[in-house]
Amino acid sequence: DFRAEFLDLHPYDQAEFFSELEDEDRAKVYNFLSPEEMADLFENLEADEEDFKDVLAQMNPNYAADMLSNMYADDAVDVLNELDKDQVASYLTIMDEEAAQEIKDLLHYEEYTAGSIMTTEFIAISANQTVRSAMYILKKEAPRAETIYYIFVVDEEKRLAGVISLRDLIVADDETMIGEVMNDRVVSVSVGEDQEEVARMMRDYNFLALPVVDFQNHLLGIITVDDIIDVMEEEASDDYSKLAGIADLDTVDRNPLAAAKKRLPWLIILLFLGMFTASLIGRFEETLDQVAILAVFIPLIAGMAGNTGTQALAVAVRGIATGDLEKENKWSIILREAGTGLITGAVCGILVAFVVYFWKGEFFLGVLVGISIFVTLIFATLAGSLVPLLMHRLKIDPAVASGPFITTINDIISILIYFGIATAFMSYLI
Amino acid sequence: DFRAEFLDLHPYDQAEFFSELEDEDRAKVYNFLSPEEMADLFENLEADEEDFKDVLAQMNPNYAADMLSNMYADDAVDVLNELDKDQVASYLTIMDEEAAQEIKDLLHYEEYTAGSIMTTEFIAISANQTVRSAMYILKKEAPRAETIYYIFVVDEEKRLAGVISLRDLIVADDETMIGEVMNDRVVSVSVGEDQEEVARMMRDYNFLALPVVDFQNHLLGIITVDDIIDVMEEEASDDYSKLAGIADLDTVDRNPLAAAKKRLPWLIILLFLGMFTASLIGRFEETLDQVAILAVFIPLIAGMAGNTGTQALAVAVRGIATGDLEKENKWSIILREAGTGLITGAVCGILVAFVVYFWKGEFFLGVLVGISIFVTLIFATLAGSLVPLLMHRLKIDPAVASGPFITTINDIISILIYFGIATAFMSYLI
Ligand SMILES: [Mg+2]
Ligand SMILES: [Mg+2]
Ligand SMILES: [Mg+2]
Ligand SMILES: [Mg+2]
Ligand SMILES: [Mg+2]
Ligand SMILES: [Mg+2]
Ligand SMILES: [Mg+2]
Ligand SMILES: [Mg+2]
Ligand SMILES: [Mg+2]
Ligand SMILES: [Mg+2]
Ligand SMILES: [Mg+2]
Ligand SMILES: [Mg+2]
Ligand SMILES: [Mg+2]
Repeated sequence: DFRAEFLDLHPYDQAEFFSELEDEDRAKVYNFLSPEEMADLFENLEADEEDFKDVLAQMNPNYAADMLSNMYADDAVDVLNELDKDQVASYLTIMDEEAAQEIKDLLHYEEYTAGSIMTTEFIAISANQTVRSAMYILKKEAPRAETIYYIFVVDEEKRLAGVISLRDLIVADDETMIGEVMNDRVVSVSVGEDQEEVARMMRDYNFLALPVVDFQNHLLGIITVDDIIDVMEEEASDDYSKLAGIADLDTVDRNPLAAAKKRLPWLIILLFLGMFTASLIGRFEETLDQVAILAVFIPLIAGMAGNTGTQALAVAVRGIATGDLEKENKWSIILREAGTGLITGAVCGILVAFVVYFWKGEFFLGVLVGISIFVTLIFATLAGSLVPLLMHRLKIDPAVASGPFITTINDIISILIYFGIATAFMSYLI
Repeated sequence: DFRAEFLDLHPYDQAEFFSELEDEDRAKVYNFLSPEEMADLFENLEADEEDFKDVLAQMNPNYAADMLSNMYADDAVDVLNELDKDQVASYLTIMDEEAAQEIKDLLHYEEYTAGSIMTTEFIAISANQTVRSAMYILKKEAPRAETIYYIFVVDEEKRLAGVISLRDLIVADDETMIGEVMNDRVVSVSVGEDQEEVARMMRDYNFLALPVVDFQNHLLGIITVDDIIDVMEEEASDDYSKLAGIADLDTVDRNPLAAAKKRLPWLIILLFLGMFTASLIGRFEETLDQVAILAVFIPLIAGMAGNTGTQALAVAVRGIATGDLEKENKWSIILREAGTGLITGAVCGILVAFVVYFWKGEFFLGVLVGISIFVTLIFATLAGSLVPLLMHRLKIDPAVASGPFITTINDIISILIYFGIATAFMSYLI
């Protein structure tokens, strides 16, 4: 029948199917799926495509609460985070008590920390038992555990003492003690750790799950690799949107008003910065009046400054994100960027000087534009890398030094350099 | 002793330690680690930090070949891909025959396809056996398998027929037949599939491994989640570097010359595009001579065009990368972007008209700049989204429509609009 067919689908496909349904048809789904079955589906619903508030409002409150208790705690928390405080409180009251307590604990952790992405359905055993008895516990707890592939070993105070993979457990002799076969050099993360750092550890160590501990090494939860994949996608979208100067790329907007809302904040800031650049050029009106041809090269010089700045910014932000820059001395980075600016500046400067000279036939104009490009690219490269490094130092997300911001700063730098040099050597130009 | 201490480290930490060593000290490592032990370390060496060619050259060739046969095939392939063809051939000759054959097969797959990231150490069983006998096979094959958490079920022709997780196997009754407990709706990927698509499936279905099949559904290999994490990081770096106009952000360059080499190609292209923009402005020299103040607003208008274009580009490229845009009708995307350009253009245009009017006291100049911004932002937004959509249609990676390229196109669009309008309504300005 249809019910069996439907449940035979992977929960992700069930969720995709559910997402396409109209409200009336969804009501039927609530009727023919148990709260446990609905929980599996709901764990796979995509937060950016569904309004959890609306969906929960359609359900019978007891059904919704029952479903939430059956979800993995981290996923239930993701849903509850989208609701109003009083709604959360009322669901927690009618929910299964143990599940409610676990969820309450998780709700406290700050966004973007290890605590905010961990879940509590891990398997913890004591070192003081045989492999056989560990296997027995494992089979018993399998239905509710998020993963059974890592079993964590804790002492009497619930402090993390070791870990054993199911792989090692399965090949171990039945009568061996867990303490002998477990790995006591267990890698764990602190509950307040940045989720990006957790993702880097998962990438480096190739774990399927990482234990999360408090400052006294008590095991609080685990973070599984599927959630780390979502973190990586979220962080990549975040860096990418910041480089482009948009508020949030994580979701696709269905209407132009919502899209415009995300783009306008930066555009308006940049508009005023652009007005400032315009006023700077205004100060050189006298120079411009005398040599109108100078105006011709403004977009070229400002554009090149913006481009090199964005390149340097991207190198710095990405290096910080992947952790590669951490390993390096800050001065060697600055020296390298200065050197890079010098080389690119020299190449582009000489190139442009020749082109302008042959095109316009004016030697001094060529030299002026060439030297301006040379000096500009050095400063623009340094600005593009120093700003994010400084922000990282100050514990600010370096990605907020977004592309358009660096571009506009570099517009200003380039205008000052270009018109400054032109005004100083005016006599050669007229 | 030191050897035992060292082997007690996680292979990633061993690799990190090895990376820090000088050549003489590395020679000692080869002496005290067996090829099998070295293989574990080598699987964790980072390709972007090590020159595999140099490292292998330091080893005794037989030791190196032995190590390569002991590595997972996908990782051995990654190493061999860095060597010259004749070196690869000579290692394959002295290597264990079976391992050499597996590696040879994998070397054929094109970069960025499922085949290029899969490995061959999977566990495949027949449906026609009990859970007990499957567990027996599993324990026997565990030491060489890349993962034992998914067991794949194949028919007599080695065609993929199902999958069973160790989780389900462990709770199943010993005497049940595999055919009864396995999942026959197994999700697989075709060997030529784009690695980004594989990553999207892994993200959606939360699998730990995905089976890879040929067009006749023969099981060829598996892709594990740890390698998908690397794919995601590589693809994110790729999109990010293209938005910034750099050749490759995957590795941090240790010297300015290498860094400059990656940045110069785009810079030089942009330099010539910039010269073209300059020549466009040159055509309006007459207009400029009459109303020199027009020059003041060039960077503002060109900058705003560049910024909106980059925003629209980022939305399109990221939407394509995450798969969100696939679900949408192309015309609705274009309509939405046109609407977004209309709204942002109107807001910024009106704002700038007022500011210019109050600042310069010139009504027509304000109107000119305002209308130019309005029209420019509409066109720039459309350019920023249409170019990547078109490229995606033509099966070109839309990320190559990189930020600086869109910025420069939009520089040209904005100059034409601004000076076009100014020239047409010249009489109002002087
Ligand atoms: Mg569940
Ligand atoms: Mg979550
Ligand atoms: Mg962060
Ligand atoms: Mg890894
Ligand atoms: Mg989870
Ligand atoms: Mg970040
Ligand atoms: Mg190995
Ligand atoms: Mg690989
Ligand atoms: Mg691709
Ligand atoms: Mg997922
Ligand atoms: Mg692998
Ligand atoms: Mg890509
Ligand atoms: Mg610009």
